[in-house]
Amino acid sequence: METVVSGIRPTGNLHLGNYFGAVKSFLQMQNEYNCFFFIADWHSLTTRPRPEDIIKSSRTILAEYLACGIDPEKATIYVQSDVKEVLELYLYLNMNAYLGEMERCTTFKEKARKQPDNVNAGLLTYPTLMAADILIHKAVKVPVGKDQEQNMEMARKFARRFNTMYETELFPEPQSFSLASQAVKIPGLDGSGKMGKSEGNCIYLMDDAETIRKKVMKAVTDSGPTTPNSEKPEVIRNLFTFLDIVSTKDTYQYFDEKWNDCSIRYGDLKKQLAEDIAKFNAPIRERINEYSQDIEFLDRVAKIGAEKAGESASKTLEEVRKTIGFRI
Amino acid sequence: METVVSGIRPTGNLHLGNYFGAVKSFLQMQNEYNCFFFIADWHSLTTRPRPEDIIKSSRTILAEYLACGIDPEKATIYVQSDVKEVLELYLYLNMNAYLGEMERCTTFKEKARKQPDNVNAGLLTYPTLMAADILIHKAVKVPVGKDQEQNMEMARKFARRFNTMYETELFPEPQSFSLASQAVKIPGLDGSGKMGKSEGNCIYLMDDAETIRKKVMKAVTDSGPTTPNSEKPEVIRNLFTFLDIVSTKDTYQYFDEKWNDCSIRYGDLKKQLAEDIAKFNAPIRERINEYSQDIEFLDRVAKIGAEKAGESASKTLEEVRKTIGFRI
Repeated sequence: METVVSGIRPTGNLHLGNYFGAVKSFLQMQNEYNCFFFIADWHSLTTRPRPEDIIKSSRTILAEYLACGIDPEKATIYVQSDVKEVLELYLYLNMNAYLGEMERCTTFKEKARKQPDNVNAGLLTYPTLMAADILIHKAVKVPVGKDQEQNMEMARKFARRFNTMYETELFPEPQSFSLASQAVKIPGLDGSGKMGKSEGNCIYLMDDAETIRKKVMKAVTDSGPTTPNSEKPEVIRNLFTFLDIVSTKDTYQYFDEKWNDCSIRYGDLKKQLAEDIAKFNAPIRERINEYSQDIEFLDRVAKIGAEKAGESASKTLEEVRKTIGFRI
Repeated sequence: METVVSGIRPTGNLHLGNYFGAVKSFLQMQNEYNCFFFIADWHSLTTRPRPEDIIKSSRTILAEYLACGIDPEKATIYVQSDVKEVLELYLYLNMNAYLGEMERCTTFKEKARKQPDNVNAGLLTYPTLMAADILIHKAVKVPVGKDQEQNMEMARKFARRFNTMYETELFPEPQSFSLASQAVKIPGLDGSGKMGKSEGNCIYLMDDAETIRKKVMKAVTDSGPTTPNSEKPEVIRNLFTFLDIVSTKDTYQYFDEKWNDCSIRYGDLKKQLAEDIAKFNAPIRERINEYSQDIEFLDRVAKIGAEKAGESASKTLEEVRKTIGFRI
């Protein structure tokens, strides 16, 4: 079984964009691969989170992933800061990562631009820490968005460099598998292209029916079709994309016909859409609430995950130490 | 009892310059302070040592320190790579170490100049790893040479910054205590100022009588004094400095008188000096040989050291994790 690693940023709640863009793929992957999903709390330090938020954010995201159906019996789900082996590999990779190539990384340059007062060594060495996260499990596949493609190239480079330097084949070169190709891109409802936290247009899995209704009713529309069978403008296409994902085929066809004969009433469509999203959310939302209240359970899941991940990590680290020449 | 930390580079054998410049001070310190002496094998990775040398170099330096009189019952002597807690603190310090200040470090700039093909992130983050080595034991004093003064300033800065950021007084600011003020500077015998590995003019603690004789007989001299009670030129002063350290007072006075009445024979002086150095070396040399052959003993000493250092380190790390907001 091939090994897959994926990191999850513990920044707030999951929204529908996350669900259909990534989590749904994870649910399939956990049946087909040896999956390690980790909550990247060390990575989050580059932006100085408040101490009282760190554990809470980890628990929140853990509860939501479990609620979505990530199964700790199938996948290993753990908190990054619980698996110390990563740090030693991080150091070793730093020793062979050139400053020039790190400074040229687009993600580094972007982050440095965003926080010019805090261009720290953690930002610079983000790619070595990310590579360590992946290589510590000898992962061969990493589901990533397009923005992480360059960091994946770095991870492959570090793996190759280590292998060449020590004349070994210890690390496989991890391949990205693009989430974009498998995932449904969830549009924003404010006329912008994509649902995203920074766009402020998210419907969260945690949202209740009333919140969803309010958000959907505010969705941008137009003045309505005037010619039968005309092409839909983007904002209307977005609503239909949503219908396609959460509603029944009949519902979709019903409104599609109404569009085509110019009798569509957006208010009706939105009401129906809000209901169907709420229906989709309801069981997940219920489980999130359930898990969130059971901190003991969450911590137990994290502990079991840490043990499984630690086992895999220490096996790799032993080989690494032996290869470099350290006592094992 | 105040805590002292000092790192030892596992690069080859100890020479008389090391002994009188540092090790002798350590022998005194271990009676007066809570000392942590560590063999800096992680730091040595910046220059890519061969795998087969790493453990060997650690054992060599350990045997020689023990032979000099470092007492594992008094001081904690350990191998850096045996105490993983340092790595986590290293990561945390990286998250708050600015690229600008790291790149301005003289030691970084010098090393980058020396190995322009391998300017790696390990070189850049040398000061954070060094600070982690010190702060992990909450050391208040660090014996350093002048070349490490700037890195000590960085360590203090990182300590202060952490304390300020998290509104804590977790880390004391480690003060350098200059070895130069306590130590005797051992001259080279080739007319150069200082005994040093890179100067290639070393007499090693491991050297036997015959090797010492050959090295001393080659010492640079002049054509001899012609005016009574004249001032000694540097190369001759160097020989007398040596006499002062390893020979008896009578011997020193004897040759000093000979110099003053212009009847000195450098061959005699060198013969006597070689004998006295060999006499000084003999018991240390014997113990080095003894310890070097007892790998089991060396590894046991390292293990006990690692346990003691690990205890101190994990205590600090627990406080650090709690302060940042991680699970402990």
